[in-house]
Amino acid sequence: MAVRIQPARRMTDIQAPIMPIIADLIAANPDTITLGQGVVSYGPPPAAIAHTKRFGETLNEHRYQAVAGIPELIEQIDLKLANENSIGRDGREVVVTAGANMAFLSAILAIADPGDEIILLRPFYFNHEMAIRMIGCIPVLVDTDENYQPVLGAIEEAITSRTRAVVTVSPNNPTGATYSKQSLIDINSLCGSRGIFHISDEAYEYFVYDDASHFSAASLPGSEGHTISLYSLSKAYGFASWRIGFMAIPTLLRDSVIKVQDTNLICAPVVSQQAAVAALRVGRSYCDEQVHVLSEVRRLALGLLGELDDVVTIPPAKGAFYFFLRINRDVDAMDVARYLIEKHKVAVVPGDTFGTVGGSYLRVSYGALDKGTVSAGIARLVEGLSEMPNSLARS
Amino acid sequence: MAVRIQPARRMTDIQAPIMPIIADLIAANPDTITLGQGVVSYGPPPAAIAHTKRFGETLNEHRYQAVAGIPELIEQIDLKLANENSIGRDGREVVVTAGANMAFLSAILAIADPGDEIILLRPFYFNHEMAIRMIGCIPVLVDTDENYQPVLGAIEEAITSRTRAVVTVSPNNPTGATYSKQSLIDINSLCGSRGIFHISDEAYEYFVYDDASHFSAASLPGSEGHTISLYSLSKAYGFASWRIGFMAIPTLLRDSVIKVQDTNLICAPVVSQQAAVAALRVGRSYCDEQVHVLSEVRRLALGLLGELDDVVTIPPAKGAFYFFLRINRDVDAMDVARYLIEKHKVAVVPGDTFGTVGGSYLRVSYGALDKGTVSAGIARLVEGLSEMPNSLARS
Repeated sequence: MAVRIQPARRMTDIQAPIMPIIADLIAANPDTITLGQGVVSYGPPPAAIAHTKRFGETLNEHRYQAVAGIPELIEQIDLKLANENSIGRDGREVVVTAGANMAFLSAILAIADPGDEIILLRPFYFNHEMAIRMIGCIPVLVDTDENYQPVLGAIEEAITSRTRAVVTVSPNNPTGATYSKQSLIDINSLCGSRGIFHISDEAYEYFVYDDASHFSAASLPGSEGHTISLYSLSKAYGFASWRIGFMAIPTLLRDSVIKVQDTNLICAPVVSQQAAVAALRVGRSYCDEQVHVLSEVRRLALGLLGELDDVVTIPPAKGAFYFFLRINRDVDAMDVARYLIEKHKVAVVPGDTFGTVGGSYLRVSYGALDKGTVSAGIARLVEGLSEMPNSLARS
Repeated sequence: MAVRIQPARRMTDIQAPIMPIIADLIAANPDTITLGQGVVSYGPPPAAIAHTKRFGETLNEHRYQAVAGIPELIEQIDLKLANENSIGRDGREVVVTAGANMAFLSAILAIADPGDEIILLRPFYFNHEMAIRMIGCIPVLVDTDENYQPVLGAIEEAITSRTRAVVTVSPNNPTGATYSKQSLIDINSLCGSRGIFHISDEAYEYFVYDDASHFSAASLPGSEGHTISLYSLSKAYGFASWRIGFMAIPTLLRDSVIKVQDTNLICAPVVSQQAAVAALRVGRSYCDEQVHVLSEVRRLALGLLGELDDVVTIPPAKGAFYFFLRINRDVDAMDVARYLIEKHKVAVVPGDTFGTVGGSYLRVSYGALDKGTVSAGIARLVEGLSEMPNSLARS
C-alpha cells in the first residue's frame, strides 16, 4: 500500500486521550475507586425525562429543526442568560450545540484560520488543546500562578499578530480554581482592546463553594462584540449522555457558526433539546441542591487530604469538582497514577494530560461520588501518596 | 474595535447555505409546495420510539458512553454491514456519529492536513464541499458526464501528490444518479493503487428504483485499508432529528477518528443510539415499504415531468429521491427558483449550490411528499417551466 495511506499529521500530533488508558488500568484492578472521571453523581431532573416520554408523536418532531436550536429552547436559554448571568441578547446570538466541546470547536473554526494562535492557560482542559491543533491552529500556552490563577501580564505578552482569542475556564477543569471577577474583567478588557476574542467556558458555573461566586465576562458592557460564552447541561443538569450545550456569540459570528453547525451536526438532537427545555424550566435550583451535597463531599475530601501536608500541595479549589495536587517530589505523574491504581486501588488522572511541565500533578475528581465512597477513595489516595516508594523517583 | 474582530476567512469563503434563503421565499409565499428539502415523509419505526420510553431510568444511562458508540448499537451495525453490504469487520472499525455529515467531517479531519486535496464529483453534496474548505483543505472538483456518472479518467487526472481521497455519493444527492458496480470498483481500485482513500457516502443506499441496485465498495476484497463508508439513519429510518449516522473505517484511522469525536461530540446522544438499536432490529424492511411507496410517487413525477421534454433534460435518476433537471435555456437557476416560488408556488433548489457551472440546473426532491401533493407540486413545476418568461434569460 502506498505511503499516503495514513492518518493526517494534524491528528497523529495530538495526544492520545488519557481516559481509556486509565479505564484499562481500572478494569485490570477490580474494586478500584475512581477519582478520575469528570462526571456528576446524578441524572437529569425527573421532569426532563418525563417530558421526553411525549416526544415523537408527530412527524415533524422527527425532521431537522432550526440549525441554531428549537425556539422553545432558545427562549429558555435567553431567560437563563438574562436572569442568572446578566447577559442580554443585544448584539448576541445563541446557538444550541451537542455539548460544550462542540461549542468550543465551532467557535474556534469561526474565528481562527490555519496557523492562527489561541491562548490557553496552563494547565488546560485537554479537549481545548486537541481542538485547536485539530483545525490547524496553534495553542499558545500561558502558565497560571502557583494558585492556578491567570497572570494578566503573561497573557498580554503572549498576544501576537496571529492571536485570535484567549480562553478562560472558570470554574476550572482541571484545577478547581475560580477566577475573580476582577481577573475576568481584566482579561475581557485586554481582549477587547487588542481586537481578539475572549472565549469564556462556563460549563461549571453552578459549582462554586465557600465564598466563591461565578462571574460571566459577557455581562460586561461593551463585551458583546468580542465575547464567546460556552455552557453545558452535562454537569449542571446531569445531562452528559443527552449532549446539550449552548453558546452566546457576537452577532458578527452568527453566519460562520451556523455554517459550521450545518456542516457538522445540522442541529442538536431534538429529543435532547426537548429534555433541555424541561430541565431549564425546572431551573438551577435542581443543580444547587446537588452542589450543596457536593460541598459536603468536598469538605470531607479536603479534611482527609489535609493529612498529606508534607507530600502534596493543594492550591485553593473553590469550584468545579476537582483538586489539582502538586506532588512535592520528583516523580512521573503517570507512574504515580499507575502505582495508585495497582497498589492502592484508587484512580486519579496524571497532570501531564493537562499540559503541566516541570512538576508532578494529579487531578482528583469528587463529582461522581457519595460521601462513603469519597471517604474510602480519598483515604486510599492519602495512604498511597504517603507510602510512595523511592522506586517511583524520576530517574 | 480592532480589525481582527471578524470571522475566519475559512468560514467567510464558504458559500452561505441556500436552504434558509429558499425557506424565506417559501414563508413569503404561502401555500407553496416544496420540492426543495431532502427529507422523507415518515418517522422512525414505532418500536424505536417505544424503546426510548424506557430510556433514562438508571443513572448510568445519563453518563458519557463509549466514544465509538454503545456496544448494543455497534453489534446491530456489524450485523447490518455483514448481511446487507457484505462488509466484514476484519481490518475495520465502526464509529457511531451524530449523522453522516459528522462522519464525513471526522473522516476528512482524520486523513487530510491543511492544504491537502479531496476530490469531489460535480455536482457535489454541498456540505461535503463546505466541510473540506472549513478544515483548510481544497476541494478538487471533477465533472461527471451528461448522465451525472463518474468519469474514471477525469478522476485519475485530478489526483496529485496532495490528494488524500476521492468521494463518491451513490445513490447521489443532488442528482439521484446511481453508480454502477463496475464504476465503484474502478474508483475504489484507483484509490487503492494510488494510495489514497475512497470515501463512499451511502446515506441513500436503500433508495433505489427500477433495475438499479446498491453496491458497497467496502465489500471488495482488499478495500479495508483505504475505504471509508458512511451511513445515516436520517433518511432510511426517518431519523433526521435524532442525529444518528455511522461509519466503517480502516483500523489505522481508529485512533484519529476517536480523537476527533472525543473533541467534537464525546459520544453520540445515547437516547438516540438506543432508538437506533431498536430501529436496526426492525431492519430495512421498514424502509423498503416506504421506498415502495416512494417509487410510485417517483413514477408519477417522472410521468408529469415528461411533458417538459423541450424545456428541460432529465438524466436517469434511479436513486435517492431527487431529479436534477438541466434547463435547456440560458437562465440563472436562482432567478428560476425565485420565479417558481413567487409565480407558481412551487419550491426547488438552484443547482449552483451543488457547484454546477456552465448551465442551469434545478434539484427536485420528492421524498417528503404523498402522491397527491407531489402531483400538484410537479404540475406547478411543469406549468412554471413551460411558461418561463423571456425576462428570465441571463443578460
